Amino acid sequence: MAGKQKRKKKRAHFKTKADEVGELRQDLVTGKWVVVATGRARRPDDFLAERSTPKRFVKVDNKCPFCRLDEFPQLPDVLRLPDDPKEWLVHIFPNKYPAFSAEEEFRTWNLGPYRAMESVGWHEVLATRWHDQVDALLTVREMSLQVEALVLRYRQLRQKPSVNHIQIIKNHGQEAGGSLEHPHHQIFTVPVLPSDVHDLLQGAERYTQANGQEPFGVMLEYEREDGARMVEENEYFTAWCPYASRRPFEVWIMPRRQEPYFENIGPEERELLAEIMRNVFRRIYVGLNDPPYNYYIHSAPCDETGFACDRSQFSHFRWHIEILPRMNVWGGFELGTGLEITTALPEESAEYLRRQKIDEIC
Amino acid sequence: MAGKQKRKKKRAHFKTKADEVGELRQDLVTGKWVVVATGRARRPDDFLAERSTPKRFVKVDNKCPFCRLDEFPQLPDVLRLPDDPKEWLVHIFPNKYPAFSAEEEFRTWNLGPYRAMESVGWHEVLATRWHDQVDALLTVREMSLQVEALVLRYRQLRQKPSVNHIQIIKNHGQEAGGSLEHPHHQIFTVPVLPSDVHDLLQGAERYTQANGQEPFGVMLEYEREDGARMVEENEYFTAWCPYASRRPFEVWIMPRRQEPYFENIGPEERELLAEIMRNVFRRIYVGLNDPPYNYYIHSAPCDETGFACDRSQFSHFRWHIEILPRMNVWGGFELGTGLEITTALPEESAEYLRRQKIDEIC
Repeated sequence: MAGKQKRKKKRAHFKTKADEVGELRQDLVTGKWVVVATGRARRPDDFLAERSTPKRFVKVDNKCPFCRLDEFPQLPDVLRLPDDPKEWLVHIFPNKYPAFSAEEEFRTWNLGPYRAMESVGWHEVLATRWHDQVDALLTVREMSLQVEALVLRYRQLRQKPSVNHIQIIKNHGQEAGGSLEHPHHQIFTVPVLPSDVHDLLQGAERYTQANGQEPFGVMLEYEREDGARMVEENEYFTAWCPYASRRPFEVWIMPRRQEPYFENIGPEERELLAEIMRNVFRRIYVGLNDPPYNYYIHSAPCDETGFACDRSQFSHFRWHIEILPRMNVWGGFELGTGLEITTALPEESAEYLRRQKIDEIC
Repeated sequence: MAGKQKRKKKRAHFKTKADEVGELRQDLVTGKWVVVATGRARRPDDFLAERSTPKRFVKVDNKCPFCRLDEFPQLPDVLRLPDDPKEWLVHIFPNKYPAFSAEEEFRTWNLGPYRAMESVGWHEVLATRWHDQVDALLTVREMSLQVEALVLRYRQLRQKPSVNHIQIIKNHGQEAGGSLEHPHHQIFTVPVLPSDVHDLLQGAERYTQANGQEPFGVMLEYEREDGARMVEENEYFTAWCPYASRRPFEVWIMPRRQEPYFENIGPEERELLAEIMRNVFRRIYVGLNDPPYNYYIHSAPCDETGFACDRSQFSHFRWHIEILPRMNVWGGFELGTGLEITTALPEESAEYLRRQKIDEIC
């Protein structure tokens, strides 16, 4: 990562323009523009001040259904790690209110000029053992177990004929759509290729054809050399605030090895992924006082069904994690245009996250 | 509009499938899929029950800056209707905290592999005269004056060389991103073609090439014949809940005349647009107890700059209004995939909105 000296120099480059009228920045892959509204910009500390509710720590909450999983022996045990009815730390099971029906086959039909299909898919929950195991407070071993469980389940689900794409997400906090306080991921499978994933794959192929290099490698090389938006890195992974960040403190975590599929990571990579995830979540937790956030894993679609786009596009794609702290509410402008307005420079977000002291929390 | 008999028959068609596993529906123009999560479905009345705060009516609030516009003579008077310092009912003026800088020219540059440009544009506010003039409580004349002011300002702004697209929006309620209670629209101009508008134009052209008819006319013809999703119509305009609704109670209002540009509507159309808008907002207000919502006007981009896409695409596009009540929070699934999960069938939303009694409110 570049030192402070270097960052200062680079910062002058964009500040000159930002001071005058602000910037629109274009995402390298999707082609989407974002507005960095410097006229509305706030200092990183201002975001912190807005969230001053002290954190309660509750290991077990008797009213929480995820704290009482052991009381419901009828619950189908999809996956437990360690696989022990008393000692498990991670548990994957079907969502009680699924958005999809778990079916291997599905019908499609037309209604007048419209197309429809049955909404088949698996909608599952990964719950941590304890009520207070938010991402920032996990040990690296606990985080690694979560990643391992997600990879194992991913490999099972992608075999199913009606699964075209798997989306792993976490909603942390009510403002981020979290319905239960107990930390949990959700795993969704869908029979279609979602539009944003399609745009990402297509964008990666378009960039590669135009420039002779795949865009994720280009981005990583530039970010590591430049340093201004870097948050942290280790032997296998890099975490940074993307140039065209859509939100204040948005962080991406990406492997430096070209790999389209999340589920292909091996045990050694998994440990280093767990470490960098835990550290990034700690920086966000300490620096922004445990804000609400969403995170999701972008991985190439499964290839088993006929609904996937051209498979050759996948080779230019690289799986990665996007973390989006939830500091503002989307209005009609964002909903109508897809053009997001962020109120913090990613360079300032990254600098703020870099200097957080994360070894001091328990 | 089709009668109740007809609706019942049609409803059986989709209900058979929805009862079993739910549906994914595809938007005719953008190709985006939405999930109708019938397993999570709620009755229209359930949405109502969640919002029981009684409404205060305050004609003037002394703490509200938009109630005190007349006290600030230094405010540049962009546009007032009627154009009278004492009797005006609608006032357009620059946003105090603009997301863009009002400049006619702008620079673009590269930073490493990335593209950026100065974020130039006009960011203005249209305020109603009185604090309690929410859309549902306007007279048709007041609504018509708002539309007239928007059209007049639109025609001025589109002449500016740095304006490539104009987005008119309204955020109603805090949950919808509204920062002030006083009813107000926002007008944004941007130097780029936003991705969602681009997708819409491209989708319209693709559909026309494949089917020999433009999709908006096809949709209107089918919806009017089918009736199940119709909300209201008059001589010039149709309001309905779209087949691939992204949100419960989403309503689109569209002219039946093929016209890409909102700003081309004439005085007679304007009156009928004001009437149908007022009525639809009344249905939402009465039926859902004044919920938060966003609405925006989709119009073809301005052609004056070099950043527009192929202009021939515009002829297949039709300007329209999209109203999105804000009944749920987006989570990581929607953010990561662009695939939205709605918890109400548009056929049920439409039926509920149709049967609201809107003549009884003052």
